[in-house]
Amino acid sequence: MMIEIAGKDDGAGIVAVTSHIDVFTREEKDCVTELWQEYIAHGAQASGYTFLVAREAGEVAGYACYGPRSLTTGTFDLFWIAVDPHGRRKGLGRELLAQVEKEVRRAGGRLVFVETSGLEKYGPTRDFYLGTGYTREAVIKDFYAAGDDLVIFTKHVR
Amino acid sequence: MMIEIAGKDDGAGIVAVTSHIDVFTREEKDCVTELWQEYIAHGAQASGYTFLVAREAGEVAGYACYGPRSLTTGTFDLFWIAVDPHGRRKGLGRELLAQVEKEVRRAGGRLVFVETSGLEKYGPTRDFYLGTGYTREAVIKDFYAAGDDLVIFTKHVR
Repeated sequence: MMIEIAGKDDGAGIVAVTSHIDVFTREEKDCVTELWQEYIAHGAQASGYTFLVAREAGEVAGYACYGPRSLTTGTFDLFWIAVDPHGRRKGLGRELLAQVEKEVRRAGGRLVFVETSGLEKYGPTRDFYLGTGYTREAVIKDFYAAGDDLVIFTKHVR
Repeated sequence: MMIEIAGKDDGAGIVAVTSHIDVFTREEKDCVTELWQEYIAHGAQASGYTFLVAREAGEVAGYACYGPRSLTTGTFDLFWIAVDPHGRRKGLGRELLAQVEKEVRRAGGRLVFVETSGLEKYGPTRDFYLGTGYTREAVIKDFYAAGDDLVIFTKHVR
């Protein structure tokens, strides 16, 4: 397994992994594609998005997308992190997240900021952040929709 | 006093008001200009930003900028609200905010989401939200910078 900064040829693999993530809505899948297109068209600096990919036997098995939050000094958003269901329980998500934190540090970052949903189906996602050193900082009721709360996790990475 | 959807000719007035807001940093002022340019170039729908202006004797005395938060159903960000220091204590800010809420309702929105700073100089801003029916929902330590917290306010507008 290898984690690297994603290149143009990883687009198909990222779209394929995304299509396998059942908890993502249509809008969320489209959002991943939009961020990917921005990243490929304009680069990490101008787009504000960086994609990392985890490859297994040459195939994209997972990815993460992060970028600096504007108007902050050293806070980075983790926009997306996804691992193909076939590749789960191998620690791929943890390794991807650790690499994001390493890249954030390298870019001078201090804080990783994660927004996720309070829905039951996102329970494993929330457990994932709690198990990787993130703090559940806030819950905003009915943020995504009535009955669908925003849960904010953060981690100081310095 | 009149509050209206901003048009192309309001750009100079919005820039002028912004330049008088001492608590805004250089980056924040530039951000207002960027959002304004997006709004004027692509319109509210495509840019995701709408500007309202408050006019007094034909001059822009204040403005607000808001837009729907992507991936939510009915949550709107209030990005900026500013009143020229000469026009303060006349309730202009409150009227602008009430008009934003009315426009959000008209657009099918439920929730207004506000991010501001925990710095001492933003005390009047936080008091303004508390005094207009907003709830202080969360504080994210060191979000903007070490020692500069994010304070989240929300209001259900239905």
